[in-house]
Amino acid sequence: MTDKQLSQADINFFTALLGEKYVITNQSDVAPFTEEPRHLFKNTCPCVLKPQNTEQISKIMDYANKQKLAIVPQGGNTGLVGGQVPAHDNEIILSLSRLNGDIEVSKSTQSLSCSSGNTLLQIQQAAAEAGLYFPLSLGSEGSCQIGGNISTNAGGTGVLKYGNMRDLVLGLEVVLADGEIWNGLRTLRKNNTGYDLKHLFIGGEGTLGIITKATLKLFTKPNHITTAFCAIDCPQKAVDLLSMMQKLSNNQIHAFELISQVAIDLVAKHSQNSRFALDEKSPWYILLDMGTDINGLTDILEQAFNAELITNAAIAQNETQAKEFWYPRHIIPEMQTMEGGSIKHDISVPIANIPDFIKSGTAIVQAIVPNCRPVTFGHIGDGNLHYNVSQPVNMDKQEYLSYWAEMNAAVNQLVMSYDGSFSAEHGIGQLKVQTMSDYKSKIELKMMRQIKQQFDPNNILNPNKTVPLL
Amino acid sequence: MTDKQLSQADINFFTALLGEKYVITNQSDVAPFTEEPRHLFKNTCPCVLKPQNTEQISKIMDYANKQKLAIVPQGGNTGLVGGQVPAHDNEIILSLSRLNGDIEVSKSTQSLSCSSGNTLLQIQQAAAEAGLYFPLSLGSEGSCQIGGNISTNAGGTGVLKYGNMRDLVLGLEVVLADGEIWNGLRTLRKNNTGYDLKHLFIGGEGTLGIITKATLKLFTKPNHITTAFCAIDCPQKAVDLLSMMQKLSNNQIHAFELISQVAIDLVAKHSQNSRFALDEKSPWYILLDMGTDINGLTDILEQAFNAELITNAAIAQNETQAKEFWYPRHIIPEMQTMEGGSIKHDISVPIANIPDFIKSGTAIVQAIVPNCRPVTFGHIGDGNLHYNVSQPVNMDKQEYLSYWAEMNAAVNQLVMSYDGSFSAEHGIGQLKVQTMSDYKSKIELKMMRQIKQQFDPNNILNPNKTVPLL
Repeated sequence: MTDKQLSQADINFFTALLGEKYVITNQSDVAPFTEEPRHLFKNTCPCVLKPQNTEQISKIMDYANKQKLAIVPQGGNTGLVGGQVPAHDNEIILSLSRLNGDIEVSKSTQSLSCSSGNTLLQIQQAAAEAGLYFPLSLGSEGSCQIGGNISTNAGGTGVLKYGNMRDLVLGLEVVLADGEIWNGLRTLRKNNTGYDLKHLFIGGEGTLGIITKATLKLFTKPNHITTAFCAIDCPQKAVDLLSMMQKLSNNQIHAFELISQVAIDLVAKHSQNSRFALDEKSPWYILLDMGTDINGLTDILEQAFNAELITNAAIAQNETQAKEFWYPRHIIPEMQTMEGGSIKHDISVPIANIPDFIKSGTAIVQAIVPNCRPVTFGHIGDGNLHYNVSQPVNMDKQEYLSYWAEMNAAVNQLVMSYDGSFSAEHGIGQLKVQTMSDYKSKIELKMMRQIKQQFDPNNILNPNKTVPLL
Repeated sequence: MTDKQLSQADINFFTALLGEKYVITNQSDVAPFTEEPRHLFKNTCPCVLKPQNTEQISKIMDYANKQKLAIVPQGGNTGLVGGQVPAHDNEIILSLSRLNGDIEVSKSTQSLSCSSGNTLLQIQQAAAEAGLYFPLSLGSEGSCQIGGNISTNAGGTGVLKYGNMRDLVLGLEVVLADGEIWNGLRTLRKNNTGYDLKHLFIGGEGTLGIITKATLKLFTKPNHITTAFCAIDCPQKAVDLLSMMQKLSNNQIHAFELISQVAIDLVAKHSQNSRFALDEKSPWYILLDMGTDINGLTDILEQAFNAELITNAAIAQNETQAKEFWYPRHIIPEMQTMEGGSIKHDISVPIANIPDFIKSGTAIVQAIVPNCRPVTFGHIGDGNLHYNVSQPVNMDKQEYLSYWAEMNAAVNQLVMSYDGSFSAEHGIGQLKVQTMSDYKSKIELKMMRQIKQQFDPNNILNPNKTVPLL
């Protein structure tokens, strides 16, 4: 960690390089860059830099490395673990937003070249305009930037079919801690020439280098995607239903989300705009997208009904209805906020263990706070649940939230008993650095520290994040 | 590099650990371990160790690291670049063949746990017995071992649909250079907790650690796979045909292989057993597997015919016929050997550049050796060609092979002009270490060397392979 403070000479250097407009030091202009979506972290920041291209970033890093100035790379500032905001008041934010030039698509190679400041939506649209498809999809896709998606190995609802962000990257351009530029911008599907370095920067949360450009995989757009909302008795039926439907559909499940009635009740209570696909209540639901037409999905759901895996189902008849089916799922976290305090867990376990986890999880959290309400939902097809526990109805919010650490620890302990993950898709950032120390093996932490030390010996790249230092 | 020679004390240590039977020093018993398939590399080896489990390997590495003894991990000894055999006469072979215990399948999680000595065929079979599917498929699958497949990031014919070996690994257990054991055996589909270390060992060719166990992704078995053999006019039609068929089949192309008439002629000349799907000759052919039934494939091929992308096609009516369609493709390299000398290239370029590459490649190699014959074939769906150039009909084989380096350099230069790869799937091993120095960027080599130095400071793990040292 560096305790070096920004000097006037540093500001002069940056201003000469970028122009006055792109070196922000006025604190009211800096403020939006230091606030993150969950308001869990709040540090001031002496300066926000807004370079326009790789070469400027190279010069910034060369200077920062020599002067030992800490640099926090920031994309769309939508991360949920505080990775994109300063951990200490001397850290400079490097905004990548201006790296948002033209996106180039190659139809034959089914690939796309972009800059890290392009939003996910821009990338989806560029692919669609070329008649192709980029499958990553997130709630924040209108504002999150692809550099951040790559740095955090973003997940979302399309992972079951297409993999995480990591699986969609063909190549990267990265500025290293000392300002050297690595051009690894390939569009190859096969390339066995030494260590695959890009995988260190993907999911590296900006601690090993700054991603400036990327080449991504595109796909032929699926001919059909049809949405269904199914009622099921219990989570085990969801696991069995997934196996059956993958087989019957020839691996055409694009999304497979578990939602509890508790979650649906919360949405119904707080959202006027929500309409529900099914009138009759059920303890659990599956919301799914399948790459077949309505007839194909109808056939498969009939077989699932006959096999007693589902008790009821509705199929969206058009795109508007599909959006209506999805709407309640997307707003669950927001509705939880309206219900008071919520203690959050972004966990994954092997899919076979999901039913056990849900059962044991409820017992464990209710032993800590009686009558707390697990609002279970998530990407069960990937074994990933957003296991967010709402406060008991009449409890004081702050009192409830005081159990955050205790409840997290108990849930994480349970997750680790299944060889699960305490951060399935949101990453580590500042929020879970201590959790890394608590649950990662010593040897794994040692390898990570060595890599960090090698790539960033002065510890200026997003310090105090991701990898707990000794 | 270590120049330490094996001593009697070392042999005594290994014998006490493994038992006399599993410390092979008799040179006639050692010989099969030092010979590799292409007979390009031949060094003696003082000793082959055959441990049974991770703990023994841990003790071997702890000892070897302290004594600075070089260790060459070896699986099924099927690699084509000399990665699995000694580069110098003092290097000990560590055979992983005895790590071949039970394979465990989880149906719900669609995953499999195995040891590195399990053959690829055993793994395919274990998945099939559980009603699931492991898609990696290689010519050597009966003898190659999964540890080697992972260490070399094996490719093969199924990459287009399912990715390389890298994409099929969920977790690894690895013994590090100093004998420490990293248990990274997870079966999670989402896990964003720090750097994804497994990607360093996958494709690391045994230079960073020894893979001892793995957890792999399984898939629902496709309902149908149908094979077709199509005649096309030129490589550009192959690129366009792939785009069209991906769209019409809803991304159901499992394999898409380009074969030239030159290659078919060679097979016809030297193989009595080959039957060809089409009677009429064509300059080029596409052999493909699609995840549809015969009717579905027939419909799509009719559309391709109407769009003038194919001139003729035959569809295999059953599995036996599908194997007959594939047989000539599999034996091309062997038939080339019967035709005399062949100068080999395992290259990839962006798919859009394949037609250009084939055209320019012919001009370039024939400028070096007039009348040499490019026997072009390969996984064009991945941009990967085995661009193997047979000698002119009446030339002396040794004289022809003396042009190997010159022709390789010219072809690699062309490949690099498209940002391609000089080793698409076979890796670096000993064969292409110098090529790494010639074509990789300085910054990329520097990062690789630093990682190698960090993970194996004494350079005892498969030294003189993969990453050229300074």
